[in-house]
Formats: sequence, C-alpha cells, structure tokens
Amino acid sequence: MNETIRLLQRHRSIRKFGDQTLPQASLDELIRAGQAAATSSFIQACTVIQVDDAASRERLAELAGGQAYVASAARFLVFCADMQRHRLACEMQGADMLSGFTEQFVTATVDVALFAQNVVVAAESLGLGICYIGGLRNDPQAVSELLELPELVYPVFGLCIGTPAQDPEVKPRLPLEVVLKRDRYSDTGDAGRIAAYDAAARDYYRGRSGGSKDIDWSGQIAAMLQKEARPHMLDFLRRRGFLKR
Amino acid sequence: MNETIRLLQRHRSIRKFGDQTLPQASLDELIRAGQAAATSSFIQACTVIQVDDAASRERLAELAGGQAYVASAARFLVFCADMQRHRLACEMQGADMLSGFTEQFVTATVDVALFAQNVVVAAESLGLGICYIGGLRNDPQAVSELLELPELVYPVFGLCIGTPAQDPEVKPRLPLEVVLKRDRYSDTGDAGRIAAYDAAARDYYRGRSGGSKDIDWSGQIAAMLQKEARPHMLDFLRRRGFLKR
Repeated sequence: MNETIRLLQRHRSIRKFGDQTLPQASLDELIRAGQAAATSSFIQACTVIQVDDAASRERLAELAGGQAYVASAARFLVFCADMQRHRLACEMQGADMLSGFTEQFVTATVDVALFAQNVVVAAESLGLGICYIGGLRNDPQAVSELLELPELVYPVFGLCIGTPAQDPEVKPRLPLEVVLKRDRYSDTGDAGRIAAYDAAARDYYRGRSGGSKDIDWSGQIAAMLQKEARPHMLDFLRRRGFLKR
Repeated sequence: MNETIRLLQRHRSIRKFGDQTLPQASLDELIRAGQAAATSSFIQACTVIQVDDAASRERLAELAGGQAYVASAARFLVFCADMQRHRLACEMQGADMLSGFTEQFVTATVDVALFAQNVVVAAESLGLGICYIGGLRNDPQAVSELLELPELVYPVFGLCIGTPAQDPEVKPRLPLEVVLKRDRYSDTGDAGRIAAYDAAARDYYRGRSGGSKDIDWSGQIAAMLQKEARPHMLDFLRRRGFLKR
C-alpha cells in the first residue's frame, strides 16, 4: 500500500476546526485538483461557491440544521450542479439547448461529486480535515436564494475545510463481500454479514461515546428510512429546471 | 504542491490498455479505498459488480456503444447505487422502509461517485489508468438484466482499470474564474472567458488529432445539447424504484 492509498483509507469527517486560515492560493490549488477529475463528455458541470461572507456562513449553518462548523471552518464551499453554463455556451453558438432530461441531472450530479472528492483528497493530503454538508438540502430553495443561484443550477452539498481540532477514529465500513460482487448481483449471505458488522459498529459507537450511544448500522438505517427523506426535493429540482423528463 | 495533488492534476482517461493483469488483492485494496470515502448519514449505498466473465464483458462493451476497452482492460467494474441493501437492513430490524424519494436517489448517486473517485485516485497512485463508462446508461435495462440487479439498484457508470498503453495529454479545463465564484453566483464575464478557453481547447484538439479534429468546448456542448439525452432514464429509474416522489 502506498501513501496515497493510506491517506484515502484514513478518512474521517472533521466537525471541529482550529482557527488557522487557508490562503486563497491554497484553496485555488484544491479547486484545480477538483477540475482535473473526469467529467462526462467533458461537460464540466460543477460550480463552486466559496462563501466568505460571515453573515451568509451563519445563515447556511442554520439552514443546515444548526451545524456550527459551517460558520467556523476556515473555508466553506457550496458545490453546485450547473447546466446554466451550458445554456450560455449554446447561446454563444447560436444554438438551442434541450434541457430537463434526467440523464443530464445524473451526469451533472456525478460530475460535482467527482470534482468534490478530488478537492477532499487534495485537502486531506495537506493535513486538512473536511466535512460534507448534505444538510444544505434541508432547504435548498433558501440556499439558492442566498447564493443567487439561477435556473439550471442546484446546490448538491456543502464542504467545510480547515485544520482539524479533533482526532476521531476511522469508522468501520461494511464487509468487502457485501459491497463487492462478482459478475452478478446477489445478496445471499449478506444478512449474516451485516449482522456481524452491526456488532462491530455497535462496539465502535459505544467506544466513541463512552457507552452512551448504543446503536448499530442496520438500526440506524431502519430508523432513518422510516421517515420521509426531504420530500421537497423533487419539486425543488423541477422548479430549477431538472428532472422534467 | 505535494505528490498527491500532482497526481490528481495529472489525470487523463485511458482508452488503450496493456495486457498486464491486476491481482484480486490489489483490486480489493482499491475497493477498500472507495469504501473509506465519506458517505451521507453513513448509508454506504455503493455496490460494485466486478465483471470477470468474458462474454459479459463483450456484451457490456457493445451496450456501451462499442467501447472495446470495456472488454480488454485488466478489470471492469460496474458501480451501482444500491438501496436494496437498506431494505434488507430494515427487514432485519422488522421495520418498514419508505423508498422512492428523490433525495434518496441524490444521496445514493453521490455516494457511488465519491466511492468511485477514491478507487480512481487509488488506482492512479499505483500507475494504473482508468476510464469511466457512462455509456452503460445507453441501455441501463439490458445492463441491469445482465448483472441481475434487483429493484432499488441501478448502474450509475462503469470503470475500466488497467496498465496504460497510451500517454494522452491532460485536457485543459475551464478557467478557474468560471467554476469558482465568491459568495454568490454570477456569470458576468464568463462568455468572454469561455471564448478564450474555446481557443485553447481548439488548439488542444487540433494538436491531439494532427489537425483533423477542429472543435472547441462550447461547440461540442452545443452539438451535444441539441440532441435528446438518454430520454429513457426517467422511466427506467422509476421502474427500479427511484424518483417516484
């Protein structure tokens, strides 16, 4: 195993940051690493909003469900899927644009995630810590208004970057056999593997919480999936011009 | 800049592979690097189908629109968004599962992309080359049947991995100012920046093709977006149990 693979396998989210700043030149370097990721048919559909304004940061922390590190991390980025840029490219060419296809939504969303993960790996290679903020999708309309996002642009997630002020353990993942299949999908035996994993996850949470958090993976998942999952998303995305057909 | 960031910024897709094999133990290591990526609310919604069967590889190459390297690369992986595993977890807990939410589709798709990009970075750190295969979405129903994917699982993209037998240039990306905004979205000035970039992209393609490929970025994009984008995707995904609400 080399140093890069060790780095990837050591990832954990950081939710407490020191007050060290991250210079603009370093941030630009991270963004260039993001841009270098593969991009479907070279669409380059990721736009990053770097949020520096303190009031906006506070508001985003609140919209994300009260995640204070959104305001306190050295940097906070909002990763957007952006097909507005392609409308502009079409206009420059005097061409019409067919939009609203689900395929375009998938492509743009994947593009954003590949870009962001490169930013994350680059940041962690510098010793920085990160936390993805899916909580921006609690109220994506308010986030879009705050950041003045036009039609055909939506905020996929946020990202905190800064110097770690905590050192959490790496969370154990599902057994390899559960996530890697050969030639065809089969979940024969997975219930047993997940049960064994649940026991390990329970130990992890107990250890991390000093015994107070007594939960396993399938229990967490079942609790989560008995609730509606941000039921506003489909309407929101359609209003932004996505998933219309 | 460190070695990891240099590695990220050097990425280019490889479409011609040598006949060196990639041992299972090395592949497992790459998948473990993928698993270590951040995962929204710890859902771990990525399942990888490692396709070893030669006939299946040939069929997938054909389904992807005749991309021979799908069959010839040392390894070919199909990355699936998988909520079937969560149904199993709910069953284990004697709980119902609310499915079909667009939010779940976004979360699972992002999960897959973060996982895959870690696999890519790990592979490239070993000197391997990769190519994402979005072409699996040309006929995702046929891919799903071939790989026996159940409901609540869909193939997001494929990935070729192997030893590079070509050394293409790194493609120039959009100017940083186009993809990185401060505090709010604004595309003022972007048309001029894209026009300048178009000139650079044209030079790149001319150089790579010995003069025969004379196209720029906005021209490529406009040509692509005048066609319907895989219009079967919405129905396909709904039939798999996604994007129902």
